[in-house]
Amino acid sequence: MSFTIFESEIAKVNDILCAVNLLTWDSRTMMPPGGVDARGKQIATLVGLARDIATGDRMMKAIESARADTDGDPLQRAAVEQAAASIGVLSRIPARLVSAAAELKTNAQAAWKQARSVDNFAGFAPWLELTMEMQREIASAIGYDAHPYDALVSTYEPEMTWAKLRELYEELQKSLVPLLADARQARPVRTEILDRTYPIERQRAFSSMISERFGYDFNRGRLDDTVHPFEISFTSADVRITGRFREDWLPGGLFAVWHEAGHGMYEQGVEERFSRSAFTTDFINLYAVGGSSFGTHESQSRLWENRVGRSRRFWEIHFDELRSFFPEQLADVSVEDFWRVVNAPRPSLIRVEADELTYDLHIMLRSEIEAGLIAGEIRVSDLPAIWRDKMRSYLGLDVPSDTLGVLQDVHWSSGMVGSFPTYTIGNIMSSQFFASAKAIPVIEEGLNRGDYAPLKAWLTENIHQYGRSRTPSELLEQATGSPMSVAYYLADLKRKVVDLSV
Amino acid sequence: MSFTIFESEIAKVNDILCAVNLLTWDSRTMMPPGGVDARGKQIATLVGLARDIATGDRMMKAIESARADTDGDPLQRAAVEQAAASIGVLSRIPARLVSAAAELKTNAQAAWKQARSVDNFAGFAPWLELTMEMQREIASAIGYDAHPYDALVSTYEPEMTWAKLRELYEELQKSLVPLLADARQARPVRTEILDRTYPIERQRAFSSMISERFGYDFNRGRLDDTVHPFEISFTSADVRITGRFREDWLPGGLFAVWHEAGHGMYEQGVEERFSRSAFTTDFINLYAVGGSSFGTHESQSRLWENRVGRSRRFWEIHFDELRSFFPEQLADVSVEDFWRVVNAPRPSLIRVEADELTYDLHIMLRSEIEAGLIAGEIRVSDLPAIWRDKMRSYLGLDVPSDTLGVLQDVHWSSGMVGSFPTYTIGNIMSSQFFASAKAIPVIEEGLNRGDYAPLKAWLTENIHQYGRSRTPSELLEQATGSPMSVAYYLADLKRKVVDLSV
Repeated sequence: MSFTIFESEIAKVNDILCAVNLLTWDSRTMMPPGGVDARGKQIATLVGLARDIATGDRMMKAIESARADTDGDPLQRAAVEQAAASIGVLSRIPARLVSAAAELKTNAQAAWKQARSVDNFAGFAPWLELTMEMQREIASAIGYDAHPYDALVSTYEPEMTWAKLRELYEELQKSLVPLLADARQARPVRTEILDRTYPIERQRAFSSMISERFGYDFNRGRLDDTVHPFEISFTSADVRITGRFREDWLPGGLFAVWHEAGHGMYEQGVEERFSRSAFTTDFINLYAVGGSSFGTHESQSRLWENRVGRSRRFWEIHFDELRSFFPEQLADVSVEDFWRVVNAPRPSLIRVEADELTYDLHIMLRSEIEAGLIAGEIRVSDLPAIWRDKMRSYLGLDVPSDTLGVLQDVHWSSGMVGSFPTYTIGNIMSSQFFASAKAIPVIEEGLNRGDYAPLKAWLTENIHQYGRSRTPSELLEQATGSPMSVAYYLADLKRKVVDLSV
Repeated sequence: MSFTIFESEIAKVNDILCAVNLLTWDSRTMMPPGGVDARGKQIATLVGLARDIATGDRMMKAIESARADTDGDPLQRAAVEQAAASIGVLSRIPARLVSAAAELKTNAQAAWKQARSVDNFAGFAPWLELTMEMQREIASAIGYDAHPYDALVSTYEPEMTWAKLRELYEELQKSLVPLLADARQARPVRTEILDRTYPIERQRAFSSMISERFGYDFNRGRLDDTVHPFEISFTSADVRITGRFREDWLPGGLFAVWHEAGHGMYEQGVEERFSRSAFTTDFINLYAVGGSSFGTHESQSRLWENRVGRSRRFWEIHFDELRSFFPEQLADVSVEDFWRVVNAPRPSLIRVEADELTYDLHIMLRSEIEAGLIAGEIRVSDLPAIWRDKMRSYLGLDVPSDTLGVLQDVHWSSGMVGSFPTYTIGNIMSSQFFASAKAIPVIEEGLNRGDYAPLKAWLTENIHQYGRSRTPSELLEQATGSPMSVAYYLADLKRKVVDLSV
């Protein structure tokens, strides 16, 4: 009985956050331009209400009673403890910090946009100072053992610390930098293939068809257009994805849809009893998210996008189908040409355009800067120089402007500090999960003939169904038998570099 | 200061209800089929929260303080009293009645659908009994002076009573019945014109173009497809309309869009300070609605649909444009043919297919039955016979089945009792407002050349801008100089019958 009351309190919070998610989805896909201001107020009201209910007396009592009444059921116990932990973080952040952060965000984003448009870091610097000060305050409020960055990272990725990240990064970097040098020896690719015109409706049709074969359920989802692709859910029964299709950039259309479909399948796969019970601990922008962590979520999107969608076998099976959608554009293109051009390393100044071999170096650079700023070891005014140094040493690139450097990402101006590492964690986990799955003959055989049902079933059974009731490390241990290891990811990248060089 | 606190409490309720409106809009236009159950729970949670906040101690205190602190500002005073009245009604309905009604609605609707599909009134009768019992309880909780029906009607139409309605109906009926007899003498019309195929995209384009010229602002709105056309708003900055286009029924596409655009212009015209402050008193399904009453709202949709859109002058101006959208379909059709065919009386068994001359007779029949049921003067088991009698005497039609008779409307199974009269009130008010507007030369001249800006400006100035801060009778008095009168509406209908007969 107590557990039922607890569940219904959490469900209430979740319902409000699902409504926030719909308001957000609508604002990015359907809303007429005039609606912006009113929508902002509506979202602020609902997020405030969700926070009030989540941290209110009623909820505290419901948690206490439920703790005493889980009948020894480990799933119930996990649900209570997971909620208690999220709510604990929320409760420790004073309301004045939350509203100050929301206000700062509006101003900091405006300053960042302006600074970026005229390549003037100095115009954003004071706002970045304020943002980091506030994030330090938030980190103190949340609490941490070793490093203030731990507090922030853990709101996106439970169990993760700066010390653990540094170990992972060190191991990655040791291999990635020489690997990048090897990759420069790769055979030249026919980049002109991608300069052709690929009608948007056919991109949409092909990417939807493949998403459906992967296992994304359109009966509980839909695909719309947006500026920045995203996945968003309103419980597992309604999980929507968006794409951005450009006639002159085919990979952007296809891989982004499969990436979001990967996120979508995670949410669609959450077992019903966990589906209405989860929200993130992101303290500013509460979200209704069903997955175990941002990194675990990213592991699913990367798995379908990169491990499956960029594999040679995938294109051996599906390239003829793609050509039937674009017969003229691909008439003179071979499977081999196409597979190479969508995998070729292209070291880039811009993170969101980075290929698999360089992406994590972009992340490391940002994480190191975030940690240094939060610890007070790096000064904001030194950032442009630090950025240039690191880009040269990690990627061998000279940064010609701050707009193409330290000013490129929206995250800091939005008060998101500590989320970047989850991209790399997602990459690492995607390979680790995929290696375990592929070791099962029926899955490997499925992949070899374009039948993705066995892989999807394994992911649902081992990851998706549990929602947030298991931690990332529990999922990894149980599904792969070992704790997080970069070995699988590095092996995948090395294999790709070798394949591209022959 | 106290007024500001009051305003922000009301705004909070309004923000939640606007979110409910978006969840509703989405469920009827965009939602994948799998989302139904979760969406129902989300809406129930948000409506429950809105009710809790609206009737909570904090709100009561905010109202008390604001009453003492309106600085003699009549608009502030009106806002406080309007909110206090709505909240008073909400507070008087016990929570157990609200949840019992919600539960009953689910079962009653299922029973109604089943009964209608097999033409078996007896299958719905017990649910209708229960519904009416519950509505009687609700009427008692709300309170009334003369008749229990008054309490229910007033939740949709403040100030309206069964006694006043009976007076209006009597006067209407006295003229409508002989008018209908006259109309049977009208010249035959070329109904085959409408049997042609009118491509949907062109219907959408033409009806949108005209809506925009009427004054509907697409920068703060959009038009989507749905099964039952509706208008819905999320403050005046985002007011959406939907239509239902069928290739084989051109008038359904055009007039429904202009009807909804009329509702939409009302919401878009509400002054900003009233826009985030209004909600209806519909005690089961709270809505965020900016207008003074359901009837006043309907007056605006009917005005653009019927007074403007079905006028002879309108088609004299726009028929060539319509023909440019459908050159083949309308090649052999004259303005006169077209105007006649979209105005010809077609007495029908079905309310939603009724023409202007018969529509109100459908409403009267329903109102009389509702009032009789609520007062306990009519027994549910007698309804099929009563329905048949009244249809014969009002419309001269024999009702062949209950599916085409007493089972045709969804309202009763949804627990909506007392809303039907607002359709007729809307018709009456539309003519009264229109007569006053047309008496102003610049408006009449505008209508004569297809310039709708002066009419739209008058409606905004006299009606829309005030939102719910003025009652329907205040709006009528101030805009037209007289209380509600059926004379203008009857004059419009008589003129139409005369015009159609020559």
